[in-house]
Amino acid sequence: MAKNLNKIVAEIFSNFKDNLSDVQHFDESPLPDKREVYKVIGEMMSMLFPGYFWDTGLSFDTIELQMSHKIASVYDTLKNQVYREIKHSCKFDNKNCKNCIDYSETLAELFLGKFAQIRQSLDLDVKAAYKNDPAASGFDEIIFSYPGLEAVAVYRMAHILFKNGLLLIPRIMSEWAHSRTGVDIHPGAEIGKSFFIDHGTGVVIGETTEIGNNVTLYQGVTLGALNFPRDSSGNLIRGRKRHPTIEDEVVIYSGATILGGETVIGKGSVIGGNVWLTESVPPNSRVLVAKSDLKIIQKKTA
Amino acid sequence: MAKNLNKIVAEIFSNFKDNLSDVQHFDESPLPDKREVYKVIGEMMSMLFPGYFWDTGLSFDTIELQMSHKIASVYDTLKNQVYREIKHSCKFDNKNCKNCIDYSETLAELFLGKFAQIRQSLDLDVKAAYKNDPAASGFDEIIFSYPGLEAVAVYRMAHILFKNGLLLIPRIMSEWAHSRTGVDIHPGAEIGKSFFIDHGTGVVIGETTEIGNNVTLYQGVTLGALNFPRDSSGNLIRGRKRHPTIEDEVVIYSGATILGGETVIGKGSVIGGNVWLTESVPPNSRVLVAKSDLKIIQKKTA
Amino acid sequence: MAKNLNKIVAEIFSNFKDNLSDVQHFDESPLPDKREVYKVIGEMMSMLFPGYFWDTGLSFDTIELQMSHKIASVYDTLKNQVYREIKHSCKFDNKNCKNCIDYSETLAELFLGKFAQIRQSLDLDVKAAYKNDPAASGFDEIIFSYPGLEAVAVYRMAHILFKNGLLLIPRIMSEWAHSRTGVDIHPGAEIGKSFFIDHGTGVVIGETTEIGNNVTLYQGVTLGALNFPRDSSGNLIRGRKRHPTIEDEVVIYSGATILGGETVIGKGSVIGGNVWLTESVPPNSRVLVAKSDLKIIQKKTA
Amino acid sequence: MAKNLNKIVAEIFSNFKDNLSDVQHFDESPLPDKREVYKVIGEMMSMLFPGYFWDTGLSFDTIELQMSHKIASVYDTLKNQVYREIKHSCKFDNKNCKNCIDYSETLAELFLGKFAQIRQSLDLDVKAAYKNDPAASGFDEIIFSYPGLEAVAVYRMAHILFKNGLLLIPRIMSEWAHSRTGVDIHPGAEIGKSFFIDHGTGVVIGETTEIGNNVTLYQGVTLGALNFPRDSSGNLIRGRKRHPTIEDEVVIYSGATILGGETVIGKGSVIGGNVWLTESVPPNSRVLVAKSDLKIIQKKTA
Amino acid sequence: MAKNLNKIVAEIFSNFKDNLSDVQHFDESPLPDKREVYKVIGEMMSMLFPGYFWDTGLSFDTIELQMSHKIASVYDTLKNQVYREIKHSCKFDNKNCKNCIDYSETLAELFLGKFAQIRQSLDLDVKAAYKNDPAASGFDEIIFSYPGLEAVAVYRMAHILFKNGLLLIPRIMSEWAHSRTGVDIHPGAEIGKSFFIDHGTGVVIGETTEIGNNVTLYQGVTLGALNFPRDSSGNLIRGRKRHPTIEDEVVIYSGATILGGETVIGKGSVIGGNVWLTESVPPNSRVLVAKSDLKIIQKKTA
Amino acid sequence: MAKNLNKIVAEIFSNFKDNLSDVQHFDESPLPDKREVYKVIGEMMSMLFPGYFWDTGLSFDTIELQMSHKIASVYDTLKNQVYREIKHSCKFDNKNCKNCIDYSETLAELFLGKFAQIRQSLDLDVKAAYKNDPAASGFDEIIFSYPGLEAVAVYRMAHILFKNGLLLIPRIMSEWAHSRTGVDIHPGAEIGKSFFIDHGTGVVIGETTEIGNNVTLYQGVTLGALNFPRDSSGNLIRGRKRHPTIEDEVVIYSGATILGGETVIGKGSVIGGNVWLTESVPPNSRVLVAKSDLKIIQKKTA
Repeated sequence: MAKNLNKIVAEIFSNFKDNLSDVQHFDESPLPDKREVYKVIGEMMSMLFPGYFWDTGLSFDTIELQMSHKIASVYDTLKNQVYREIKHSCKFDNKNCKNCIDYSETLAELFLGKFAQIRQSLDLDVKAAYKNDPAASGFDEIIFSYPGLEAVAVYRMAHILFKNGLLLIPRIMSEWAHSRTGVDIHPGAEIGKSFFIDHGTGVVIGETTEIGNNVTLYQGVTLGALNFPRDSSGNLIRGRKRHPTIEDEVVIYSGATILGGETVIGKGSVIGGNVWLTESVPPNSRVLVAKSDLKIIQKKTA
Repeated sequence: MAKNLNKIVAEIFSNFKDNLSDVQHFDESPLPDKREVYKVIGEMMSMLFPGYFWDTGLSFDTIELQMSHKIASVYDTLKNQVYREIKHSCKFDNKNCKNCIDYSETLAELFLGKFAQIRQSLDLDVKAAYKNDPAASGFDEIIFSYPGLEAVAVYRMAHILFKNGLLLIPRIMSEWAHSRTGVDIHPGAEIGKSFFIDHGTGVVIGETTEIGNNVTLYQGVTLGALNFPRDSSGNLIRGRKRHPTIEDEVVIYSGATILGGETVIGKGSVIGGNVWLTESVPPNSRVLVAKSDLKIIQKKTA
Repeated sequence: MAKNLNKIVAEIFSNFKDNLSDVQHFDESPLPDKREVYKVIGEMMSMLFPGYFWDTGLSFDTIELQMSHKIASVYDTLKNQVYREIKHSCKFDNKNCKNCIDYSETLAELFLGKFAQIRQSLDLDVKAAYKNDPAASGFDEIIFSYPGLEAVAVYRMAHILFKNGLLLIPRIMSEWAHSRTGVDIHPGAEIGKSFFIDHGTGVVIGETTEIGNNVTLYQGVTLGALNFPRDSSGNLIRGRKRHPTIEDEVVIYSGATILGGETVIGKGSVIGGNVWLTESVPPNSRVLVAKSDLKIIQKKTA
Repeated sequence: MAKNLNKIVAEIFSNFKDNLSDVQHFDESPLPDKREVYKVIGEMMSMLFPGYFWDTGLSFDTIELQMSHKIASVYDTLKNQVYREIKHSCKFDNKNCKNCIDYSETLAELFLGKFAQIRQSLDLDVKAAYKNDPAASGFDEIIFSYPGLEAVAVYRMAHILFKNGLLLIPRIMSEWAHSRTGVDIHPGAEIGKSFFIDHGTGVVIGETTEIGNNVTLYQGVTLGALNFPRDSSGNLIRGRKRHPTIEDEVVIYSGATILGGETVIGKGSVIGGNVWLTESVPPNSRVLVAKSDLKIIQKKTA
Repeated sequence: MAKNLNKIVAEIFSNFKDNLSDVQHFDESPLPDKREVYKVIGEMMSMLFPGYFWDTGLSFDTIELQMSHKIASVYDTLKNQVYREIKHSCKFDNKNCKNCIDYSETLAELFLGKFAQIRQSLDLDVKAAYKNDPAASGFDEIIFSYPGLEAVAVYRMAHILFKNGLLLIPRIMSEWAHSRTGVDIHPGAEIGKSFFIDHGTGVVIGETTEIGNNVTLYQGVTLGALNFPRDSSGNLIRGRKRHPTIEDEVVIYSGATILGGETVIGKGSVIGGNVWLTESVPPNSRVLVAKSDLKIIQKKTA
Repeated sequence: MAKNLNKIVAEIFSNFKDNLSDVQHFDESPLPDKREVYKVIGEMMSMLFPGYFWDTGLSFDTIELQMSHKIASVYDTLKNQVYREIKHSCKFDNKNCKNCIDYSETLAELFLGKFAQIRQSLDLDVKAAYKNDPAASGFDEIIFSYPGLEAVAVYRMAHILFKNGLLLIPRIMSEWAHSRTGVDIHPGAEIGKSFFIDHGTGVVIGETTEIGNNVTLYQGVTLGALNFPRDSSGNLIRGRKRHPTIEDEVVIYSGATILGGETVIGKGSVIGGNVWLTESVPPNSRVLVAKSDLKIIQKKTA
């Protein structure tokens, strides 16, 4: 039995040793561990929405007893994972390496220092959902079951880390949310207050998107890039603004696609479902697909 | 090390104490626990599809030995979570509070009392998938790997709870399914027998949707609301029928959007891919996007 | 308390005993266990992308110590699950039953024997992502956070098992990926080298699709079936080529739908966003929705 | 780093391959798994003492719901472990191998068929503890915290398996109890009804011991062998009665040692603390160490 | 297969229903859960010996962050288990039932309120071990590996609960320690400061024992009862002082047995190994077994 | 509710801060973690007794696949725990601190480098048990259920670490074994080949004991210290030989106590049960308690 197994195993190991792939990471200094990053998200969510993701009741009187270890866990876990991210990149350029441990601690503190600010933003996001969705029965339902809110909450955390020079950890966070909610928000996007995404599946918000306050999106909305210029060697030019700007009070209905770094949707505009836009529209525009040309045929029935 | 951490922690706690947010739940009587609700789903799925989600074989002769504790688990877990949902709402209106424990037991019994009915519905749903999908090799594949079936199974459970006055628990259930399948069915929707959703990602079925028997949907179909009237104070009017009615034998292809509470898709109709409909169509209609105006350009090649 | 529970339980068991549903599996020989199949995926992913999904550093020098048990785990788990799949189907046709254990071992060996080939393919897929996405900062980000890559990796494993006569296990694998990424690739599809799916949510690639080398897809692309012919008894005809052929170097933008088994997208073509295609286009075509007929209305402002 | 590790690992594996020790078991047919045997003990204890080792309340009305899966678990686990024990011994003598599976099932059934009898015995053992220990506040304390009762409960289970031809499983059971309680009862011993061991640490009851009804032992009592005759080749003669017989109503105080297969402690006797006996005593004897010759010296104090 | 299993199961359940044993607890109000009690011990040990049973470093600066949830866990768990103990006894006498919840909270607070006192006692116990054992290399070794210290630590916790009217929980605690250390200290015993037990296996300290300060015991020491008077009905008289009094500065060597409620070992005495004492000795006595009468025979050698 | 809890918590923390106990370890560099040390024991046991503590079969052909990760786990875990032990002691004397990491690796390698030697010793120990115990049915029973063997196996591992300068880790190991088996062997003792301890509970073997080859001990045997000289300041003199020397081929029966660093039990001697020896005996002695002076009284019977 298993008669060829040893031979196959030997081949697998020789494949590793012969084939010096670029897509591997043999290194004593490990990369971030996704599960640890997810743990940070979980602990933060339970603190940002106190009382919602807890197995017991939570009380003002004993909040320190009930919550302190979550803060300690976020601090330790994030510090360790930041170290794993930055230590690794250090190895190649040797420049921010010297103080990796200090920097990891500083960044974990900085992140926790933004706690109140994140929480305040999420309060406004919850209220925006309630204000804009007639199906919402109240805040509890929104917090327990709105994927858009979950995606935005994770975005607000990941964004802070991204703005402070991390990449892998915020992207692991954003993909955790993408996987669970179908909402793909790049942590580099800039999103204002009172943001609401309904249903959510299929929403894509690209890295250089800018979104104002009081904006609402529905499922399947893409805020994407229009084209990808390459340099003279044929390599993609990275780092340009490639995604649109959405001003305050805009509503974008399901399936709409808005592309391009110079596309600006003016304040107070409404973009209808399935609209495909690659140019700017002035404030207070209402953009609709012209009466779609449907063919309605009556089937013969016996 | 960690020199500012204590200060940051103090700020976090003072944020909780100063800022009496409405988006929090400090209360000895805890809200439902999502993981417990998920446990109910898991136990129910293994019983509704006997033999599929089991680590060992399952036998008619010993079914009581193998399944009894799952029933007990569903009963206990659901009873406790129902209590957590209704006890909490009791605090504000004080009217159905008196018999919270009794009501929780009654509802858990009622739910289990529908077991045969749910199972019968799901048998028909599996058969509808087989009848309508040429890729389906048999019932086993459908049960193991069709996300549409999973979403519908969870909907059929959540709907019973929703109809009996619960909200958070059925919505937690429907979002569990949404997260895993990309299919977002509000537990308030009314869906008939032999329902089939293929592929599923991006399907949205709103709260007041009514769907007849033998209906088939493909990925990306939205059955949504058209507009959201507000009252004289500018608040959304909640509770109206806002979503369409889909009669028996209708097929709706991928990406179609059907909106509005007065929109009725007549029996036996076929709605083509990407169609955007905000008005009713009579029975046996075939609705297609008119020959779409494509521009086909031949690229120059060297 | 719980006064009707015993009666309800009795009804549930009598429902099982009376109602000989076809959608059940009472059998001492169990069906595959999803969680075990998922374990195979997890172990394989950590080996295919060495150093990425590990809690500690990974070193060339000690790779056998760190990885051997993962190979053993894949071999054992897959062998057992293959046995559960094929033993079960054996019961009905009695023809490939005789050597179920031998065949399970052979198939587990065959799968591990393809390790180097799968790894090589995935190296090219990672590089294709980097080449085509200006937002990608490097290989690490792609491996950690590109859902398209995860879906393709799982496809490449599932495809090998599908080609060797399994169905349930590869479909359980593909739905695991679908659930996490929103990308639904049937394991029967034939996909060439250097394949890239960006964002991914809503992508559907049907069973008989053929895709060449260096193809790129964006979110929401459907490669589907056009219609489903039935035989004279009204039953679906299964097993025909129903899905399109995509030749080398094709790019298909978000939301495009390409249907039909005879539809061929010629080499080097570009299919624009939201295009709905049911016919072939020659090589080097650029297909766009004709300037969409948008209605832009200026809202009155007070 | 770890510079010699690969060399050390190679040596370890070559040690396994070169040195064909007799103290190893390289075999596809595995030996019993201790943890599985412990699981049987745990499930049985919770059923034998209903309501004591449960995390929730236990009710007569729902006992089937709460207990059925424990019976199923005992049956399955024991069946599998019995198979692992007997299949293994089969390999060498090939005589009871043919029906290993049948025999395992039969033995698991036989064991469960003794449930009522074991339970009845343990009821009497609990009552004997209460009757004889002035420190016992009631049955609950005895069941929760008397190590002697735990050891006797495990003995009563292990004895049944031992009498039906098993050896490793009952010995694994008895050592589990020995480890936890300090009471070492060989599963081959014959022990009557209403047996009580107080405190327990250090009690040893050998394989061929016979104990009547209503016997009480204190900590540190040894019922052992006197000498070990060897055959003409110098090998130990195994299987003789080597341990004493203790008749009904006997009390043996702490630290007493009673040795020899022909030693009989007559009915109703009392053996004092630290007594060392290698000969029989008639019924109703009271055996004491003669006034021990203590030397009491007064220390000088400053 | 399993042909008689259903019959056997039916018998088991009918045994429960027919045989109304006294040794069972069918009740919605559950008894304490041993595992929860063990959790209290574990959390307390890690706090009482800060830095010893921790997986990470522990710092003065962040002690609140690292320890708060342990206090919360002890409070909640103990409160719940106390409730389970006292609620249960309430059912029979109905007198202290009314305020069961209040009393549970009060008792959990009282227990935590003794934290500093317990910790101080244990500090002295550790130092006593160091002072008296030449093998002890330092405090760390004592805390990590002296079973006597573990047993005493658990005793000091259990004693507080016992003195406040609990029985099952302190006895579950003391048996947890007995099982792990072989040291059986009844929680009712009164033990002074700076107490040291070396090696420990086989030590028994009965319920009404009184021990002064600076006492040292070695393995196998029994402080037990001499005889058990029964009342005129033949029932044991419970609650009398049955175990000895050991005054300050006493040392008792291994295997010594001291029995009887009126036996007093005077201050500063030393009791030699294997001594069997049932009478008091004055202060500063040195009690030894008189030169034991050994028979030394020279074996013949070939 | 919980009205005093915050006050109590504050007191606990102020107790930590005020009372600078010596029995605490507030330090970023953590002490060894017991659970990690236990993991090393568990992995080693499964390798030292191949096939016994495994959930599946183990095969010569695939031993590298099945065992490699256990070696890696022992190496990593031990290295980390050694570091935790030596780093900590470094802080105070600053002398062997410099190369803590190197030394930890070296010691973990050294330990694994002794694998074959440990295994060979244990083979002899198993055979010694079989040779000397007429109750032993074979090697399997001994490995599965002889506590003496478990204690000796752990001793043989701990001894290597102790001889190489560690203290806490070997003592944690020896107490793990003591707790489970009742056998307390100090890792500093020197024990020869083919050593057998039967039953085991209560055996104590002190730090400076020397034991030759082919020695057998029974339960309750103490090889201990006689008295503890103190220096002129009244402090114990540590580090002297305080425990006896047992030469080859000696048998010591249950309950015997042998004390003193100058006591030598000559080769081939037999020490009877309960003997108390503080002086040497020449080779081939048979030492027995002189016919013990028992008082046998006939109870009056009605």
